[in-house]
Amino acid sequence: MINNFDEYKAIIDGYLLDHLENTGEFDRTLFEAMKYSIQSGGKRLRPVLLLSSCVFAGGSIEEALPYAAAMEYIHTYSLIHDDLPAMDDDDLRRGRPTNHIVYGDGMAVLAGDGLLSAAFEIMFKDMLLHAENGEELEKRVRAADAISDGAGIRGMVAGQSADLESESRDNRDYGSEDKNDSAEMLKYIHRHKTADMIIASIRAGLYIGGADKAMMRDMTLYAENLGLAFQIADDILDVVGTEEELGKSTGQDEKNNKLTYISLYGMEGSRKRLHELTENAVNAVSEYGRNAFFFRELVRKLENRTK
Amino acid sequence: MINNFDEYKAIIDGYLLDHLENTGEFDRTLFEAMKYSIQSGGKRLRPVLLLSSCVFAGGSIEEALPYAAAMEYIHTYSLIHDDLPAMDDDDLRRGRPTNHIVYGDGMAVLAGDGLLSAAFEIMFKDMLLHAENGEELEKRVRAADAISDGAGIRGMVAGQSADLESESRDNRDYGSEDKNDSAEMLKYIHRHKTADMIIASIRAGLYIGGADKAMMRDMTLYAENLGLAFQIADDILDVVGTEEELGKSTGQDEKNNKLTYISLYGMEGSRKRLHELTENAVNAVSEYGRNAFFFRELVRKLENRTK
Repeated sequence: MINNFDEYKAIIDGYLLDHLENTGEFDRTLFEAMKYSIQSGGKRLRPVLLLSSCVFAGGSIEEALPYAAAMEYIHTYSLIHDDLPAMDDDDLRRGRPTNHIVYGDGMAVLAGDGLLSAAFEIMFKDMLLHAENGEELEKRVRAADAISDGAGIRGMVAGQSADLESESRDNRDYGSEDKNDSAEMLKYIHRHKTADMIIASIRAGLYIGGADKAMMRDMTLYAENLGLAFQIADDILDVVGTEEELGKSTGQDEKNNKLTYISLYGMEGSRKRLHELTENAVNAVSEYGRNAFFFRELVRKLENRTK
Repeated sequence: MINNFDEYKAIIDGYLLDHLENTGEFDRTLFEAMKYSIQSGGKRLRPVLLLSSCVFAGGSIEEALPYAAAMEYIHTYSLIHDDLPAMDDDDLRRGRPTNHIVYGDGMAVLAGDGLLSAAFEIMFKDMLLHAENGEELEKRVRAADAISDGAGIRGMVAGQSADLESESRDNRDYGSEDKNDSAEMLKYIHRHKTADMIIASIRAGLYIGGADKAMMRDMTLYAENLGLAFQIADDILDVVGTEEELGKSTGQDEKNNKLTYISLYGMEGSRKRLHELTENAVNAVSEYGRNAFFFRELVRKLENRTK
């Protein structure tokens, strides 16, 4: 059993490009653009969570890999589209120029569309391979369904949409009633924009690994707390982090008048909530003892992350 | 057996919105934007082909509906993204302002992302429903895989990418070697941007309906010819059609210096090729007699379409 984040990360890093080989002259730029963003050195949190959850439930890394790659393709597409001038208009991501800066806005739209499509392609190819060997399809369909729910119109895309709308509101100067509205909206954005993809990663891994209902329930609770903690940690880093450490522009949230945990509850309130969520996540998997060490360590490290 | 395009169209029109109900305040705009484009009166060619192919193979309309809806969601997302300022920059589509004109560029990106995601969501939900009833999953996975191939990075997205790149080249003034290059590129664009989605619709319907290998082969040949014929007919209409009939801006291809069948082979050469492809499609299904009447009639009408 692997208990090290970086070992999982190395495995997924070695696999992500296998499905992204172009066939000739006319699709070269598209594939280059997709690979540019895939190779730009992300943390690979979502695929690592998927692989480790599958192993935690008793499955193998190998059978979870196509689904882990799908998660990272979806995450990467969302970053490419999010960085577009029509959305957050970011020039820098992970220390490099964003996709549309290098390939142009049109190709960046298509690179995102392509990665989202590739996520489903890679899962269907895996299902058909196993169907031909007479192996079970249902657990794979359940994993893909969880991923599709987390990424889709009741998951991440809905969160992005609410986030986009929140930017056109005035989130700095409000009375107490407005503050209530904003708190509801922030909760919605954090849950759907970020937590849903984290939850989907963990649940998909558990399905592939064959987890029972109790483990599904406990790990979903873990995932919900981890997902919300992750977004608050991200908001904190946008304020206290440096561009050098993070490889992206900081202070963007304030510049964009963005609704964040900090803008609503201040730095102290945000750190307190982050700590609560971390403890909730740790407690959700406490009864699994040493087997859940990886997951407890991961959320604890997250609380103190500087990049 | 339905032998009428409009009857199929009415069935799919009545089904498309079922999966697009928003849940509350924060996702209202996203769902409105998706529904706006879904309801804008398309021909529904792809879902009708999927339903009729399923029936042709001996299946029911009902079990093909989620896959037919998925095709139309994917087709609609591709139009929304294609109309963006970063791509073709069109203000008018089917007689109404395009999605980004009404909802803004950012929301239009998300509405497209949402519809692409919804296509896969609706198929997975259908698979899980049938799995719970102990019914076959494999033919449904094969249908979804065909759709995903047609839409994805070796299908429509690749075609869109080549199309986008072709616009930055000079397609008007070339020597004979350039003309050869352009002919290759046009072939690639037509095959992937348009034909692949038509082929996917027909093959997905056949999988759901349980077609045998011979029917799969014959109908794939039909689909390939229909798909190419459809794009040439579209290029012709952009020159000879009126905005009033088509509900979109005409003469756009020339304005955008677009590589089209007309720019390469002229009007007469294009009409001739369209006729050849039509006859090929008709001949591909000749041995199915009256059962294939619907498909022969469809491609013949297409040859003479004015909108």
